[in-house]
Amino acid sequence: MSQAPKDIEALIELMARLPGLGPRSARRAVLHLIKKRGQLLNPLADAMAAVGATARECLNCGNIGTSDICGICDSEKRSIGQICVVEDVADLWAMERAGVFKGRYHVLGGTLSALDDIGPEELRIPKLRDRITSEGITEVILALGATIDGQTTAHYIADELQGVTVTSLAQGVPIGGELDYLDDGTITAALNARKSL
Amino acid sequence: MSQAPKDIEALIELMARLPGLGPRSARRAVLHLIKKRGQLLNPLADAMAAVGATARECLNCGNIGTSDICGICDSEKRSIGQICVVEDVADLWAMERAGVFKGRYHVLGGTLSALDDIGPEELRIPKLRDRITSEGITEVILALGATIDGQTTAHYIADELQGVTVTSLAQGVPIGGELDYLDDGTITAALNARKSL
Repeated sequence: MSQAPKDIEALIELMARLPGLGPRSARRAVLHLIKKRGQLLNPLADAMAAVGATARECLNCGNIGTSDICGICDSEKRSIGQICVVEDVADLWAMERAGVFKGRYHVLGGTLSALDDIGPEELRIPKLRDRITSEGITEVILALGATIDGQTTAHYIADELQGVTVTSLAQGVPIGGELDYLDDGTITAALNARKSL
Repeated sequence: MSQAPKDIEALIELMARLPGLGPRSARRAVLHLIKKRGQLLNPLADAMAAVGATARECLNCGNIGTSDICGICDSEKRSIGQICVVEDVADLWAMERAGVFKGRYHVLGGTLSALDDIGPEELRIPKLRDRITSEGITEVILALGATIDGQTTAHYIADELQGVTVTSLAQGVPIGGELDYLDDGTITAALNARKSL
């Protein structure tokens, strides 16, 4: 209870359900919004309504766009034959920011997880299998997180897919990284995958 | 740049301007919103539009409500004669949650600050002086933060107001507080203000 009027109370409660905000920071955010009504609150309400009306999942790859088939799947400039598998739309965006991959994507929507009872059917893996045949894919690049769940999922997918090259992102020292600050696992991975110069 | 469609990009940019969210957490929040379109995104857009249309500052005390005079100023159940001065609406709500003060409030909208160039005119202090006369106030309770700016503001107001009792919240050990975890300033204040049992 914030002792605020009902409308404002309802807004605070909804805001508190956003990841990264709790009840206290939601209250602070709402007060800020009300102070900046013209510059922030009203534009935000409009932007949310617009996204709510137009955003949809791409039926092909799971990316978020404004049409049934997303801009990447629809683009003729993207090379055919390579597909990059990511956990989530945020990861797809991160890959696109790097701007180095020119093929298409496949968003799993998570990772396999025995604890959370997430199996292959929940993860759009059947759809991936379909796409490999229908789109004539020759290489599947697994860009999954270097976590236990991410790597389990990668191994599962590699085992499942036959007749196609499956690769995964290299592991090693990140650009700008100092050895002193890296964990043992990263150093071990980087040493095992060392390259001759 | 998130490489998201334009609508979604615009929403992320607006969300990133909320206190407590940065570009990365705004992106995460927006993806969460899109996933929970029915339960969260659309209700949030509606709630924001509703608050944007109805919320306004009380012309009398500065509280946020849905009419020109807020529910507290308008209520006949609130005792007359005492006014509690707070920095911000969030502080007013905190006082109301405690449920112990039965008078009316006055929201300053900040504290005096030489660094930020905030003087008495920016702080609704003239309005406070008017209200003391027009509402027949006998006691002004200063419930300002125990910060340097808060205490400077408290002293300024106490000096300014004549013919009225000015009090401030007691300083000391918070309920549930352990001495071992308290800072020196709090212990000093609590010792100086000791009471006989």
